[in-house]
This record gives sequence, C-alpha cells and structure tokens, in this order.
Amino acid sequence: MKLSMSPAQQSSVRLPGKVWFVGAGPGSADLLTVRAIRLLARADIVLHDALMSDEVLEWAPTARHIAVGKRSGGVSTEQRFIDRTLVECARHHAVVVRLKGGDPTVFARLDEEIDALDAVGIDWEIVPGITAASSAAAAAGHSLTRRGVSRSVQIVTPRVGRGEAQSMHWAEGLSPDATVVLYMAGQIAGDCAAILMSRGFAPETPVVCVRGASWATQSVDRMTLGALAADGLAVDERPVALLVGVAVAERARDLAGHIRGPGSIRSDLVRYA
Amino acid sequence: MKLSMSPAQQSSVRLPGKVWFVGAGPGSADLLTVRAIRLLARADIVLHDALMSDEVLEWAPTARHIAVGKRSGGVSTEQRFIDRTLVECARHHAVVVRLKGGDPTVFARLDEEIDALDAVGIDWEIVPGITAASSAAAAAGHSLTRRGVSRSVQIVTPRVGRGEAQSMHWAEGLSPDATVVLYMAGQIAGDCAAILMSRGFAPETPVVCVRGASWATQSVDRMTLGALAADGLAVDERPVALLVGVAVAERARDLAGHIRGPGSIRSDLVRYA
Repeated sequence: MKLSMSPAQQSSVRLPGKVWFVGAGPGSADLLTVRAIRLLARADIVLHDALMSDEVLEWAPTARHIAVGKRSGGVSTEQRFIDRTLVECARHHAVVVRLKGGDPTVFARLDEEIDALDAVGIDWEIVPGITAASSAAAAAGHSLTRRGVSRSVQIVTPRVGRGEAQSMHWAEGLSPDATVVLYMAGQIAGDCAAILMSRGFAPETPVVCVRGASWATQSVDRMTLGALAADGLAVDERPVALLVGVAVAERARDLAGHIRGPGSIRSDLVRYA
Repeated sequence: MKLSMSPAQQSSVRLPGKVWFVGAGPGSADLLTVRAIRLLARADIVLHDALMSDEVLEWAPTARHIAVGKRSGGVSTEQRFIDRTLVECARHHAVVVRLKGGDPTVFARLDEEIDALDAVGIDWEIVPGITAASSAAAAAGHSLTRRGVSRSVQIVTPRVGRGEAQSMHWAEGLSPDATVVLYMAGQIAGDCAAILMSRGFAPETPVVCVRGASWATQSVDRMTLGALAADGLAVDERPVALLVGVAVAERARDLAGHIRGPGSIRSDLVRYA
C-alpha cells in the first residue's frame, strides 16, 4: 500500500491514525449525516462497501477509495482481508473512514473489524447512519410503530454467513403484534413469508416491499404475507427491505396515490435546495 | 396564527404547503442528515418536540419555531392540538417542517399526524433520522448485531399513552438471543429488568445504559439485568436508551477505557471539522 501524506499530516499528526466507522444511510447522497460528510471531506482513505453510490463517494473527493464490500451472490472480499486492510490503512493514514451502508451497528460485521483494531491498539469511533428500517418506512410513508397497534420494531435477517447452515432460527420470537423488518431477504422472501406463516402470522398480514429506498429507482410495493409466500419476489441489484405487520396496513389515502413511484422521494424541494 | 409570506412565496407557491416529517436524530447538531438541514434552512415554520437542542434549531434560523413536544411527566401538548396546528401551518406556509427527535417512524405518533393531514388533503413526506438504537450503540461502541450471537434487534418501549393501562405486554416475544433496545424506559427501568427476567432473560445478561447519546453530557454505563432489577436507574433530563443482550457484552478493550465519559463523542476532529 502506497503511503502518501500531506506535509501537514507529516508534521502534526500522530500515527497510527483513527478509524471512523461511518454509516452512509440508504444510498441517496443527502441522507448522510453532517458529521459523516465532514469526516469524508477530511478523510485520507475511505474503505467502502459495494453498492456505495458515486454520489455518496463524491463527499470524499480527495481521499483514496477502496471498495471492500461483500455482496450476496457476487464477488466478495473476505472479512479477514477487510480487517487486515483496515489495520494497514490506520497505520499509515491519520483519518480512515470505514463507510458502511445503512447504520454500522446493524448487520455490518462491525464487531469483527473493531476486534481487529483493538488487537493492535488502534483507536476508532462510530458515526451512526440511517438504517434500512427507517429509510424503507420513510419511502413507504408509514410509521413503524402505532399506538395501541404495534409497540415494537423487530429488525432481523434470514441471511447466514458462509459456513453457517441456513435455518429458521431467525424467525423465533417474531411477533405479529410487532412490525417486523426483514433485511437482505429479497432472494428468499417467499420462504421467509412461509416461515412467518408457520409461526402464526396470518396470510393477510400486510407487507410493504421497498426496493432501493431513496435511490432514483426506488419502488414501493404492497402485498400480503400469503401472496409473498406464493409468489416470492423478483430481485435485481437494488437492496430490499420488507416491512411486515399491521402498522403498515394500507391507509385510505394510499389508494389516492400518496405512495408514488420511482424517484418520488427526490422532491423538487430537495433537488434544488 | 399570523400569516407571513415572502413576495416569492406569494407569487409562485401553491398553497396549502407541504409538511416534512423530519428526524432530528439524538440531539447533536451534526447528526441530522444533509436533507434535514437543507429543509430546515428553507422552512417557513418548524414545529418541534420538546428536548430539541438550540444547536439543532439553529439549522432553521429564518423559520418561526413552535415547541409542541410531549415530555414524560412534564407539561405536554395534546396530540389533537398538535394535529390541528400542523394543518393550520400547512394552510398558510409553503414549507412546514415537523421536527421529531430520533427517527419519525419510531414511537413518534407519526400516523396520527399523517391521518390529520390526509383528512384535509395536505401533502407530506418523511425524512428519516438516526433512531436512538443506532445513536446509543454508536455512543457505547457496540454493534447491535453479532454474527452467530445476535441476529436481530428488537426495539420496544414499555411506555403507554395517557388512558392506556400499564401492562407487561411490551415484553412478549422479546428474546435473549436478540439485542433488545428499550426506549423511554428510564423511570421504570428496574421494573422492566424484572419483567425481562421473569420471561427467561438471565440475571447476568449484559445491559448498557446510554443517557443523552451524542449530548455533551452523554454517559455510558454497564450493568447486568439483575443489578438493574435490584437498583433501578437514577434519571435526569437526558433521554435513556437501554441495550440488553449478549451482543453488548464487555470486550477486553473496554476495560482499558475505550468507552469514555461525557463529551467523548465530540472528538477533536469533529469539533473543528
């Protein structure tokens, strides 16, 4: 790895540097936090997941960018390689940003990377991001909780790591009284729906499927759990979040078209702001 | 309510306006999203919860500010009044921001306000924010999920609204295999811990208590569920999030002081960025 430091860094910065685990949110460049973009502007190097949009990475115009992310079904970077790269970067750069989609504390294997840094005494800090449950709910125009109806949000993934056996364990404890949010379940959504029904969820339980929340190609589709079990989902490159529960039942106004099609989240106001 | 519109608004903006439900995150002014601060900069009027810090409200220097938030145990604004005010504001202003702490889709009574707007045909949109589960996990330096250990996050509150009976219903379905995040439970934290133990959580289950996540007065404390049941929590004006589960077990490095005291989240880097 080539070392390149500005004169200011060489004179004033204590090495090794610090790693910032930064949440990039769902994809739209304006759904990062102010803290995140300030860090990206100052970063020497950015290690980012796959699926990170160019517009998000443009917040770090002067940093070196390294794509290290894993993608379901695609080419993946071994976690151990990511851990080693992170340590190596922090040994040679003052400000290292490890940019993760969504929030770094949810299904991001954050602890494994923290353990690697702790093992060699490199400092780190977490900057939270918008997790998919929030961005999907915003896209769908629904609250995840509703007084007297749904008092909890259960965020879960059926996805298992390489070497782990696929199981139904993920569905234990899930409740039809909660709003269940399934992450990374697009490819096995039909199976997931069937498993939920086998655990007491009614076939008519409302499901909202959000593909590419906040992306220009965002889509929001409604179905019942029974229909999802029967038909499964067509998947593409967009990440899928499934909201399941009575809290996301259709409102009268939805029929009049409040939930709009692709790109609707980028309203005129936001675009020219 | 006084109507005041700029000439540009009077000539070009279709009234009624639009309501933006915007998540303000945990409190620090740099944990709002870029979309949120752009909207606040353009807002004509901002209706905000109690507990909203001055530094957050400074993102909307030209807007009229109305505090409408509810606080546990304090003076509260009736939800119906909030709903009516929101409608009234949108009838007279182009850009109305309804600023809610955390994320607007989690325990924010969003659906009630949406219903009020839908009833009179006023447009609205949701801008997601950092929810307390993410900000508390970031403050504590923990992932909420951990491969092979904790595959789900269960966000729940024991708090009930006025007129609803306190019950143990909130604890149904919660699992020691998940990371449970309790919102708004500070005042009855001891009772909550006892209820979780009665539902099979071991007394030695790790608990991390985050008060005022991202605030200058932030604190992070560790305890076991058994100790919490015995001792309860001392509460003050800071919001409390409780992280419960093996995913937040102490790491060796924590003993060396990685979890720091008040103000630690505002690192030098962020402060002068």
